[in-house]
This record gives sequence, structure tokens and C-alpha cells, in this order.
Amino acid sequence: MDLVQQEMTRMGQQARQAARQLARASGAAKNAALNAMTDGLIRNTLHLQRENEKDLLAGREKGLSAAMLDRLTLTNARIQGMAEGIAQVAALEDPVGEIIGMKPRPNGLMIGRMRVPLGVIGIIYESRPNVTADAAALSVKSGNAVILRGGSEAIHSNRAIAAILAEGLEMAQLPRSAVQLVQTPDRAAVGALLSMNQHVDVIIPRGGKGLIERIIAESHIPVIKHLHGICHTYIDQDADVDMAIKLTLNGKMQRTGVCNATETLLVHAAMADTCLPPIGQTLKEAGCVMRCCPETLKRLAPLGGIPATDEDWDTEYLDAILSIRVVASMDEAMDHIERHGSQHTDTIVTRDHARAMRFLREVDSSSVMVNASTRFSDGFEYGLGAEMGISTDRLHVRGPVGLEGLTTLKYIVLGAGQTRG
Amino acid sequence: MDLVQQEMTRMGQQARQAARQLARASGAAKNAALNAMTDGLIRNTLHLQRENEKDLLAGREKGLSAAMLDRLTLTNARIQGMAEGIAQVAALEDPVGEIIGMKPRPNGLMIGRMRVPLGVIGIIYESRPNVTADAAALSVKSGNAVILRGGSEAIHSNRAIAAILAEGLEMAQLPRSAVQLVQTPDRAAVGALLSMNQHVDVIIPRGGKGLIERIIAESHIPVIKHLHGICHTYIDQDADVDMAIKLTLNGKMQRTGVCNATETLLVHAAMADTCLPPIGQTLKEAGCVMRCCPETLKRLAPLGGIPATDEDWDTEYLDAILSIRVVASMDEAMDHIERHGSQHTDTIVTRDHARAMRFLREVDSSSVMVNASTRFSDGFEYGLGAEMGISTDRLHVRGPVGLEGLTTLKYIVLGAGQTRG
Repeated sequence: MDLVQQEMTRMGQQARQAARQLARASGAAKNAALNAMTDGLIRNTLHLQRENEKDLLAGREKGLSAAMLDRLTLTNARIQGMAEGIAQVAALEDPVGEIIGMKPRPNGLMIGRMRVPLGVIGIIYESRPNVTADAAALSVKSGNAVILRGGSEAIHSNRAIAAILAEGLEMAQLPRSAVQLVQTPDRAAVGALLSMNQHVDVIIPRGGKGLIERIIAESHIPVIKHLHGICHTYIDQDADVDMAIKLTLNGKMQRTGVCNATETLLVHAAMADTCLPPIGQTLKEAGCVMRCCPETLKRLAPLGGIPATDEDWDTEYLDAILSIRVVASMDEAMDHIERHGSQHTDTIVTRDHARAMRFLREVDSSSVMVNASTRFSDGFEYGLGAEMGISTDRLHVRGPVGLEGLTTLKYIVLGAGQTRG
Repeated sequence: MDLVQQEMTRMGQQARQAARQLARASGAAKNAALNAMTDGLIRNTLHLQRENEKDLLAGREKGLSAAMLDRLTLTNARIQGMAEGIAQVAALEDPVGEIIGMKPRPNGLMIGRMRVPLGVIGIIYESRPNVTADAAALSVKSGNAVILRGGSEAIHSNRAIAAILAEGLEMAQLPRSAVQLVQTPDRAAVGALLSMNQHVDVIIPRGGKGLIERIIAESHIPVIKHLHGICHTYIDQDADVDMAIKLTLNGKMQRTGVCNATETLLVHAAMADTCLPPIGQTLKEAGCVMRCCPETLKRLAPLGGIPATDEDWDTEYLDAILSIRVVASMDEAMDHIERHGSQHTDTIVTRDHARAMRFLREVDSSSVMVNASTRFSDGFEYGLGAEMGISTDRLHVRGPVGLEGLTTLKYIVLGAGQTRG
């Protein structure tokens, strides 16, 4: 075993040990640690910025783009934001220990389930150093130990943040190794992390599609992931025209660089003449590029619509661009979503109850909506209080991942001496 | 791509296609298929036995043990049992489409979750041909497609059963390829199956520890598994002596060759003198070998107790053998369970409420019990109606896996035109 593997194995063993302690920790102790982390980040603002400056210097030398340097920068406001994020997690209800579904069996046994932590979570992420604090807070609150592997371009910032988080744990008499940061920039550490299935229970990648595809290919540990968000707004034959305009505009343009933005608009043929011109006008005014199927183009060419290519239907623009297609039926819309969607979020605009229910049932995405903007697909909007990410996977958790998604349910059985006959 | 890989890829694509159709199928259509399968198995009893005879002949030539040949044999009663098992699954409630937790948000959106199938399940199992029918029935009922890979020694039996199951699907106008059996005995098919993460959502192995360890090492798809069952019965300082005797006897001896049998008895030192002699007497009369720690041996040597070795504490006997250890405290008992247990099922015998609750919370097993026999750890006993196996994993499902364990929850959002601000 080489040095990197040895070091990762040691971290894995320590994480497992810490996870056992954290699983038994009271909500009060976990909150004390989170509050100490919040205080520590604020108190160490200058120190964090000095360490961050080292990353920025190296980044400038390496020629990182202005956008990447911006994401990397720890401004006062961002440090404040990280600290507040941890305080918000502390204020959430403790998910661990909840008991659900206790029911009596004919023999008098009471059987139900108790919510317990997953164990050890591995998080692999890219340049934003705030993920270090967010992910650690959610892990600690849900009773899990976490191993964090951030991008090498943020290594000094991440180290400084992680040291403050570990100190917060210690101040609450919880094990420092419940939050560990991989210290080496060596890429072999990722490979080692992804193979330690005896020490790590789940991997959660946060970053671009390239990062996530590499992790899926390599991992021997289950991965909770979303690859991308190709979200659809479908305007049904019975849609309210004003609502259709409003939801299309909001879904696409309220914020464009995010995974729950609408990327493709599907319009029932019966609505093409009434809906497309006002939608086209609204989008044009909002500065949105419209890539159109031939039927759409007939109506929107005068408003600046341009022809779509086959590739458009499979593209997550993350930009002020919308692909638009006219479909002959709801079935054709659902077929399109099945073929081109990414199982993230899809919405129908309709007044028809039966078709709304059919869409809800048959569209196989992690969030399916009726008469609501795709932009609502988010842990905070759903009332989860916090979000580790959004899963477009099927196993364990689907859709926004909050504290509950970082736990599992074990069976508990209360008896009075029953034996099996 | 070689031929085996090509064939597996084709099966995976067909399974994915079938899964989409099955996810949308009504409960009535799925039940019609299951009832047709039941009828088909009964009607084809003679044909099944002729095909089974080919496996038995080959098995005898290969020198399979009498126990293995017995497991392989399709008697009338076993065929009847398979058919009844499918009929029982048909009688269960359809899990798909259930909506839970719909709650209003401040903006008027109603947000909750809908139960949907996992998609495609891969099942890898050993000699018992009845698994073919059991696993297929649970998969179909929960709206999943399944790819079955049975042991090569049961290939003729499995093919005959799978053909009848596919016919049942067809009679109910459901896709035959919702239940597919891997036809080749080539071991490369398993490797191909374990790498098709685009076509298969979860792997469920059913068999011995060796099989499961190989699958874990090789799989790029999440695995729901239990490796082994080293279950503990812990007699606390406040236990009722009669209850302690009864639960120990039942946990160990009611059936010995099963994963939820007690393999180790832990006894609080304060109870050693009152509990161990009557327990020893009872076990002796039941024909159970007692492997004892030194403190236990002091009390049980006269009843035939023999010294335990270090290895005993980590052994799943699956036999009329019990290891017995005296512990100084409940903490020592929980430490022992943590170190030597397999996170399957552990029970405490106590009259003390606070310690019962602490044991329940802190013991990190898939089933934790108070004053009940470990033998109850079972999907039928828990009221799940059927069981695909028992998971000692943490992700997705922990403990007995019934229909619900073969589903996932997607988010659904009902609006009235809400947009995000």
C-alpha cells in the first residue's frame, strides 16, 4: 500500500470511529459543535482571508478564469454566509432517533423503525470553499462523519475552514475526526476514497458533469448524484394561457445558470397559435434566445426564433436559451421527456385534472409538477430546511437531499418475552 | 464487445424498456400476470419436474452433496409452494403510486412524495430454483423489471420456471422482458451484469457469504445485501430469569440454520449465577453445544460447556452451537456486539426501561429488539407480507426488504401557477 492509500485508510478508520460516537451524540452536543463552528468562522475571518489569498495567488498564476477566481474568493459576506448557513442547520430538528410506524402485531410485538445516521459520507467537490462548511454542518447534524475532498485550487482555504470546524467539534466534546479534509492534492486520494467501501457508506459528488461521470465510473461505493438538469415545461391543450406565459418565463429566466431552470418548452399543437406568439414576445423582451422546431419557427421566426438542431433537445444550456418544440399530444410530450430529459424536474401546465394526474404518475423524474415553475425544485423551497444537493438517482433518495436523506431507518421491536412458534 | 457482453447489454436494454411499461401498469394488470404465473406453474408441474430431472442428473454426475441435491429438487410440494408464494404477493397492496406527506408551503404549493418502482433489479442467486419465482413476483408487483442470474446447476429448472413467468406477463399484456433469465452459464455474464449501471439500478445477491463478497468487490451498481447473521441475545442485570431462558432457547434452537438465529449469548455478570445454570440445563437438554468464556465455563463445565476460542465470537454457526460470554456491564455487551456482530439482529432481555431505550438507540444493527426472540427478524413476522431478503446495509433499506424496499419516492408538486420570486 502506498503512502496516499495508507493515509486515506487511516482517515477512513478514524471516520468510522467518529461516526459511532456521533451517532450516539445528543442533539444538544451536535448543536453546541455547530454553534462553535459558526463563532469560529466569524472570529477567524481575517485568518481565513489570508489563507484564501494564497489560493487566489496560485490561481492567478495558474491562469484561472475570472469566474473561477470569483467563486474561489472568500469575501466578508461569503464567510458571514457560511457561518449563518451552519447556524441555520443547527436550528433544524434533529432527525436522529425519530421513531416511525410503530404498529402492534397479532402476537403483541410492537414493530416500527428508528431513524439513524448513514455512517461515513465522502464528499468530493470542486472550487467553492463554502461547500466545506455546508456539507460538514449537514453531516454533523445528521450524526454522520464526513471525509471532504475539495478542489486543489482551494486547498489553503479548505484547510483553514476544516481546522475551524474540527475545533468546534472539540469544543463540544465531539471527535475532531467527524470532519476530516483530505490534505493531499494527489489525485490518487480520490481513487483510494472511492474504493474504501468498508469505511465509507456513500459518496456525494458536488460539481460539474465531468467530475461526476469520473466518480461513477470509478466508485465501488454507492453514489448519490445528479448529472445534469434538462428540465421541461409542457403546455397542455387545456392550459391557461397567462399561466403558461408566466411559468415559462419564470422557469427559464428567473435564474438561468442553475440545474432547475427550464431548458426545453413543449407546447401542445392545439395551443401553438394562442400560446407561442405571446410567449415568444415575452422571452424576446427578457433577452432569451429561442431555438425552435419547424412548427415553432413558423410562429416565432418573426420574433427572432432560430432553428433548433437535434443536439438542442439534449442540452443543458445554463443560459438565456430555450429550446421549443410543438408536440401532437401529451403522450408525445412525455416520450420527449423520457428520451431527452435528465429525470430532474418537469412540469405540466394544464386545467385538466385527469391529464395532470397522469403526468404526475407517468413522468419518471425526481420532481414532477403541475402548474408550478421548475425553479421550485430545491430543498429550501420544499421545506427541507437545507440541501446537500439534488439526487436524480433512484436508490435511497430521489430529489432534493436534506437531513433525512443522510439518514436511514433501522427496525426496532418491543416485546414482552415473545418467542417464535 | 464479446458475445456475452452483447447479449447482456441487449437484456439490459430490454429490461429498461419493460421497466418503463411496468411502472405505468395498473395493479390489476400486475395481479393478472401474477395469477397467470401461479396457474402456469401448477399446470406445468410435470414439465417442470422433467426439466428439473436434467439438473439433478447433471448434479449427481458432478457429485453434488445430498443437501445440495435436496435443495435443487422440485417436489410437488415445492412447486405448489412457489405458486402459492406468487398468489400471496398478488394479494398484497400495490405499493406503486402511493402519495405521502403532502403538505402546503407558505406560497400555497402542495408538496409531497409519490412511491415509484426502482427500475431494473439484478438478482444473482445460488442453487434453489424457487428464488426465480419469488424474486420475479416481488419485482413485478413493485413495478420493476428483473434480470435473474441463477446457479448453473439449476439452469434447466430456472429456464422452465422463467418461461412460465414470461408467459404469465404476456397473458396480462405486460412485456415478457420484465422477467428475464440469463441463459448462458458463462461466469462472464455476472461481470457484465455488474457493470451495466446504465441499465440496472440495484443488485440483490441471494446466497452464501462467498458469493456476496465476490459481488461486492466487482459491482459498479449499488448492492443490497446481508453478508451473515451473527445475532446476539444480551441478558441484562435486570432481566426476568424465566424470560431470559425462554428467549435464549428460542433464539438459538427454534431453527438453527437461519441468519436470525442467536449465535452468541451475552450475560451480565450480576446474572451469571442465577441465569447460566438453568440456561445451560435447558440448552443441554435441547442438544446445544455451549462454547464458553472462562467465567461461563465455571458455571457450565458441569453441564458439558467447553472453552470458546477467539474465533467463536466471530462465527455464524448456523448450527446447534452457542457461544456464551459473561460481560461486566451493558457497555461491555454493546462493545462486544459492535466488534463481533454483523449488524443483523440483536436483542436485550431487561426489565429496566432506561437501559432498554439506550440499547435500542445505540446498538447499530438493522433490527434491534427488547424482550423478543431474534428469530422474529423476518419480513413476514414484521408484517411486510413478503421478503426479498434482509439488508444489513445502510443505504436505501435496512432490515427485511419487502415491496416498499423495492420502490423509491419522487417529489410531486401541485401548484396554481406559482412562480419563484
